[in-house]
Amino acid sequence: MSGAFPSAAEIAAGVRDGRLSPVRVVQAALDRIAALDPGLNCFTGLRAEEALAEAQALDAGDCRKPLAGVPFAVKNLFDVQGVTTLAGSALLAGRPPAQRDAAMVERLRAAGAILIGQLNMDEFAYGFSTENAHHGITANPHDPGRIAGGSSGGSAASVAAGLVPLALGSDTNGSIRVPASLCGVFGLKPSFGRLSRRGAFPFVHSLDHVGPFARSVADLALCYDAMQGPDAEDPALVDRAAEPVSPALDAPLRPLRVGVLGGWFRHGADAQALSAVQRVADGLARAGASVREASLNGAEAARSAAFCITAAEGGALHLPTLRTDADRYDPAVRDRLIAGAMLPAAVTARAQRVRAVFRAEAAAVLEHFDILLAPATPCAAVPRGAATMLLDGQQVPARANLGLHTQPISFIGLPVLSVPAQSETDALPIGVQLIGAPWAERTLFEAAFRLERDGVSVCRAPGALS
Amino acid sequence: MSGAFPSAAEIAAGVRDGRLSPVRVVQAALDRIAALDPGLNCFTGLRAEEALAEAQALDAGDCRKPLAGVPFAVKNLFDVQGVTTLAGSALLAGRPPAQRDAAMVERLRAAGAILIGQLNMDEFAYGFSTENAHHGITANPHDPGRIAGGSSGGSAASVAAGLVPLALGSDTNGSIRVPASLCGVFGLKPSFGRLSRRGAFPFVHSLDHVGPFARSVADLALCYDAMQGPDAEDPALVDRAAEPVSPALDAPLRPLRVGVLGGWFRHGADAQALSAVQRVADGLARAGASVREASLNGAEAARSAAFCITAAEGGALHLPTLRTDADRYDPAVRDRLIAGAMLPAAVTARAQRVRAVFRAEAAAVLEHFDILLAPATPCAAVPRGAATMLLDGQQVPARANLGLHTQPISFIGLPVLSVPAQSETDALPIGVQLIGAPWAERTLFEAAFRLERDGVSVCRAPGALS
Repeated sequence: MSGAFPSAAEIAAGVRDGRLSPVRVVQAALDRIAALDPGLNCFTGLRAEEALAEAQALDAGDCRKPLAGVPFAVKNLFDVQGVTTLAGSALLAGRPPAQRDAAMVERLRAAGAILIGQLNMDEFAYGFSTENAHHGITANPHDPGRIAGGSSGGSAASVAAGLVPLALGSDTNGSIRVPASLCGVFGLKPSFGRLSRRGAFPFVHSLDHVGPFARSVADLALCYDAMQGPDAEDPALVDRAAEPVSPALDAPLRPLRVGVLGGWFRHGADAQALSAVQRVADGLARAGASVREASLNGAEAARSAAFCITAAEGGALHLPTLRTDADRYDPAVRDRLIAGAMLPAAVTARAQRVRAVFRAEAAAVLEHFDILLAPATPCAAVPRGAATMLLDGQQVPARANLGLHTQPISFIGLPVLSVPAQSETDALPIGVQLIGAPWAERTLFEAAFRLERDGVSVCRAPGALS
Repeated sequence: MSGAFPSAAEIAAGVRDGRLSPVRVVQAALDRIAALDPGLNCFTGLRAEEALAEAQALDAGDCRKPLAGVPFAVKNLFDVQGVTTLAGSALLAGRPPAQRDAAMVERLRAAGAILIGQLNMDEFAYGFSTENAHHGITANPHDPGRIAGGSSGGSAASVAAGLVPLALGSDTNGSIRVPASLCGVFGLKPSFGRLSRRGAFPFVHSLDHVGPFARSVADLALCYDAMQGPDAEDPALVDRAAEPVSPALDAPLRPLRVGVLGGWFRHGADAQALSAVQRVADGLARAGASVREASLNGAEAARSAAFCITAAEGGALHLPTLRTDADRYDPAVRDRLIAGAMLPAAVTARAQRVRAVFRAEAAAVLEHFDILLAPATPCAAVPRGAATMLLDGQQVPARANLGLHTQPISFIGLPVLSVPAQSETDALPIGVQLIGAPWAERTLFEAAFRLERDGVSVCRAPGALS
């Protein structure tokens, strides 16, 4: 076993060989959830009976599938047939059950994985803390007094706590990378247009991405490979054949050109975040990479522009419901959506120009670098209920500023693999973003795999739970 | 000579053969402008001395160029080196002269054409009537008591009146097609991204197109061919090699699939506009086309969405100037820009979704048709100063509704060639839009050439001036 819990790869191999019974695997996951989730609050829905029945029904053919018998869970904005999709909101609880699984749920189940349940999130994915007014706060497995990060907090925490080896989340401005960082797991926000969003409750059309969490790079790759490929039902998906990353993970690492982002990406990062970036840079240098400083001068403007577009498009999406049911929204979400719905288009028109300029700047920089490094969060997990946090000597709103360094990158759709990168003496995890050019996920996986093998990026079992 | 005035092709051929002196050609144009423009008010700037000097300087090598010695003029939003670009506004009059010609001016001059001057327009291209508060009203050469249409009214009228054989305009929501229709000339709004906008004063980034006017299809093709090709300095230009249309104009017409648009494109069109569409459909049928009814159900919503995006992006562009100099705008333009600058982004976010849906609908329809037909204007030219016009039994604002049928098409960037299509007994000209799939300009030119040769689409000399 790699780490404290069985990996997806180990489970699938064991099921394939007949050494592991899928029913026992699923039952073990359910037992662990029963024991730990009351304290963590990752799950908002469980499908224990169905999962056990599906494990029972796996036949010999199914057992040869790449994720045979592997338990997984999904942020509760993914459609699951027969279950009402909540997207973290009490507003949707009265809606009819989904008729059909979301595309990514369908793909993982087709690959033999077994869906265990749905996971907590910030309401409508608008937040970085998974402090949900309706479903409660998801605790950080490394310190239950702290947040798990968000909006895919249930996904990151459930993987970090060993409840499931794989989980799905979504990332609009950092909602995969932020909780991956705070919970100390691997998370992938793929290139915009790479993975189908069909059946995932939307937030901001031009910013929404879906992606996986795992405790090892090999598991993340297995999951990502099962999710890739064309889907005619998602109009935003780029029609592109799957480019599997699993087969090449342990190939010798070619000499990479690595850039350590300065400016905005150092601004506001605390000592732990900065030394995590340095650890990753040093690790890649030892693996043969040339490491230099790099800059994206438009990052601060890009982050502001992403904020405006998020608020405006999110506001536009929710405006009809805000008009009739504003009082049923989480207050912290409602107020930003209302403000966004009133934002003048003159602002977003300018924001889109900022985006075009920043996209061009990043494209030019990425001609000189294979990977850019930046903190995934400016600091480790803050205490639950913390309204503010200390950044660069100033108290700033915690909920908004955890995405300080993720937001400019998703704004232009670049692929990012967030790797855990805390030192052995750090009390709490923290992550680093490996940022690539569009469609260069494979490079990110190869680098992350090497960092993991060399002990730089390791997903640790939470001391409090093990 | 085709028609009453020498064509660009005839001038270039004469100059090439040595039969025509470029200086005499330019002088003839200047003489005609001196005689007629005081009544028409097409020109806001003339470069008589420079043009004569350039004609004088044409050497033997220059005389072999495709537009050698051909006079042309441009809407006054195109940069001309040494001249202050006005974009129809008194606000810009104090700005320094342009350092360099706009890309399209540069290309036409490189092809041997001689720039005569700048032409009147609606302020900042926001209008369909060329009733300019600062530079006055451009008269329709076919009836000086009526408008020329806009916003490229000076361009269409100068070509219709035989002042120049070629002129350039711009089209955001119909600003080439509307005045081409009302003045009875050919006008091309190319595919979005086909022709460089570098050095053309912007209005709405995602809707602005530049294009030529001419009195014959062959001239329009000569001009368009000289304008095509990559330009690294226009980031919105699609990197695409020139696809010349002139060489193929008189090739036998392949059997075209022609759709006559119903619904929105019949709604609000008067009897003359509808019979013009029928004349063109019948003409293409006689030339071997299969003609059927076609529909674009999203057209009405697309037009509303285009209105919102125009107002919002135009408002965003002008907001800094509106804050300091609102009183120096044309009142009709100012009020719409201010309203647009306050439009919530929630509205334009929805408008962009309407656009995506309509684009997909049009793409699907254009798999079954080579050309779609629609009126270019709902009626012929209205009287100068007419605040309203009668459409479908209702008095509606004239200025906004002249673009009723052009606006949905430019919204999704389709190429359109507007052909004159009045009957022999019509007192005033009216145009019909030949609409193609993206990049299918050549098909439009071939059809227009056949219609012209068969006497269906003929640019008539204005009776009042000849």
